[in-house]
Amino acid sequence: MPQIDPIAIRQGDRLALSRALTMIENNAPESRALQSALFPFTGHAHLIGVTGAPGAGKSTLVNQLAMGLRQGKEGQPAPKVAIIAVDPTSPFTGGALLGDRIRMGGLAGDKGIFIRSMASRGVLGGLASHTAAFVTILDSAGFDLIIIETIGAGQAEVGIASLAHTVVVVEAPGMGDDIQAIKAGILEIADIIVVNKADRLGAENTIRALRVMLEMAQGKSGAFDIKGKHGLDALLPTIKEKQKPQPGWIPPIHTTIATEGQGIAPLIEDILRHGEHLAHTGEWQQKEAARLRRDIQALIRNTLLDQWWQKQDENQFEEILADVLQRKYSPLEAVERLL
Amino acid sequence: MPQIDPIAIRQGDRLALSRALTMIENNAPESRALQSALFPFTGHAHLIGVTGAPGAGKSTLVNQLAMGLRQGKEGQPAPKVAIIAVDPTSPFTGGALLGDRIRMGGLAGDKGIFIRSMASRGVLGGLASHTAAFVTILDSAGFDLIIIETIGAGQAEVGIASLAHTVVVVEAPGMGDDIQAIKAGILEIADIIVVNKADRLGAENTIRALRVMLEMAQGKSGAFDIKGKHGLDALLPTIKEKQKPQPGWIPPIHTTIATEGQGIAPLIEDILRHGEHLAHTGEWQQKEAARLRRDIQALIRNTLLDQWWQKQDENQFEEILADVLQRKYSPLEAVERLL
Repeated sequence: MPQIDPIAIRQGDRLALSRALTMIENNAPESRALQSALFPFTGHAHLIGVTGAPGAGKSTLVNQLAMGLRQGKEGQPAPKVAIIAVDPTSPFTGGALLGDRIRMGGLAGDKGIFIRSMASRGVLGGLASHTAAFVTILDSAGFDLIIIETIGAGQAEVGIASLAHTVVVVEAPGMGDDIQAIKAGILEIADIIVVNKADRLGAENTIRALRVMLEMAQGKSGAFDIKGKHGLDALLPTIKEKQKPQPGWIPPIHTTIATEGQGIAPLIEDILRHGEHLAHTGEWQQKEAARLRRDIQALIRNTLLDQWWQKQDENQFEEILADVLQRKYSPLEAVERLL
Repeated sequence: MPQIDPIAIRQGDRLALSRALTMIENNAPESRALQSALFPFTGHAHLIGVTGAPGAGKSTLVNQLAMGLRQGKEGQPAPKVAIIAVDPTSPFTGGALLGDRIRMGGLAGDKGIFIRSMASRGVLGGLASHTAAFVTILDSAGFDLIIIETIGAGQAEVGIASLAHTVVVVEAPGMGDDIQAIKAGILEIADIIVVNKADRLGAENTIRALRVMLEMAQGKSGAFDIKGKHGLDALLPTIKEKQKPQPGWIPPIHTTIATEGQGIAPLIEDILRHGEHLAHTGEWQQKEAARLRRDIQALIRNTLLDQWWQKQDENQFEEILADVLQRKYSPLEAVERLL
């Protein structure tokens, strides 16, 4: 694979960008040097994790967010927006491409938006490190906002979203019991909660359930805020009354109908407000430190294993495996022999 | 934590079993010796992975399977059945307990069935190794069939299911686009496919979609079989015609209505038939080898990292992290310094 000029990346050259991300996906050794060259120019982007159960309408919402964020604030230059769609179960790069094509609707031709799906099957354990590397490249290329979209239904995927500065958890009415379990798991990491498809039957029940789970997850009662213009506010007067000014961030609950663009503007406002809150309280730096710590630890784990395999006698490993298969000793004892 | 007598486990003492599994969940060092002591008595159980998208009705289906498998074959002793429910997103042990309580309906009081939910948040990377350890314990305790139920919506979770001898992928009609992507990812590992909730609107579409995806995933056309008594057979004459005898296993598509117990008996028949197929072709041994290989590799990875951390100077790590935060050098360069 030919070298990629870091300067082309920093200038936002889209072909160079695409090639750099492919290099990372392929675990090309050259990508390491590129990342190191670009790393000093990172730390600017606001990372927004968007996660939620399958069927909640995440992709549509993310498209709407990207278009909305791209508008920027009056009198300021339009921010550049990147989307990384982490699809852990797509087996085909074709699937990823299809996803991109579907997304193109409102976003096609806008040079200030960059979309990349990560077809990630077969890179067990590599999802998180690839996402981190993607962020490095896109951040250094001057993207102001990077949306990381993951299916919030697996431990690894929830973990990736939780690395963002701002985590948006998307729900939708009318999902089953399994979904409840997922909700409970990801609500803990939510900075903002969205009930999408808010015109659907059961939206009120979803909000009620979210309220209870959020109270459990946050370990405090009444510590949230509900926003939306879909007739749902009126249903929840007791919650609104309970609101008290608190020092920390209170995860607001938004209602949206992403397919119609409803509820997007106030959601964007809160996403940006959360970014300002983090910067103001010093939590931005803390999150940054936690993210880099995890990046480094993941790199250490992979490097240690690589180094060990390189030194390992493959025949010895196979002999020991054969012994374990015959129940001569256990896997734990096998590892003691190998290390 | 007090020692657990391996003999009590082998005799199927339920209290000893529960405590052994808790020990594993807590990463108690004593659990290692226990696993090694019990490992020689494993290799007997038929491991059945049941995975599928949230909302497909997996838990109900698994309960029905357990009850049905427990009946056994005429003139033979009733087999013992264990269920390991891996719920990667449940944050509360309470959630796991709730799950167990819900399950109890038809299974309560049957000494030949053992159910355990694995509340697994916070054990990033430990899911697979804990599942493997659970299997060792339950296998040595004489359970003939061990059902491993996972949400098929994350890489780690799909990976766990794929370690079973027989992988059952559960779908349900009427799910969204995200689900399609998940389907594609897990169909590749399916030995048996179940369309549950087969009385729901859209069941025919689901089967049609499965047919296409299965053809892609299996890389061969017409290489499957559709079973069920819900009026769907008639819809798919062309598929039935395409069936040809093939040397390998042809993943059958079953239709079930788990809540009513419909379609369970033929599904169980195929699960057992698949076990016999594996034994007959030698694939059982191959799968066993692959599973133990992965167990050993996971143990090596964890042990290497533990060993490294023990030798590591924590202050040095924090200093290097601070340098990275200030963009003095990249995470990759940090790892080079640390190792």
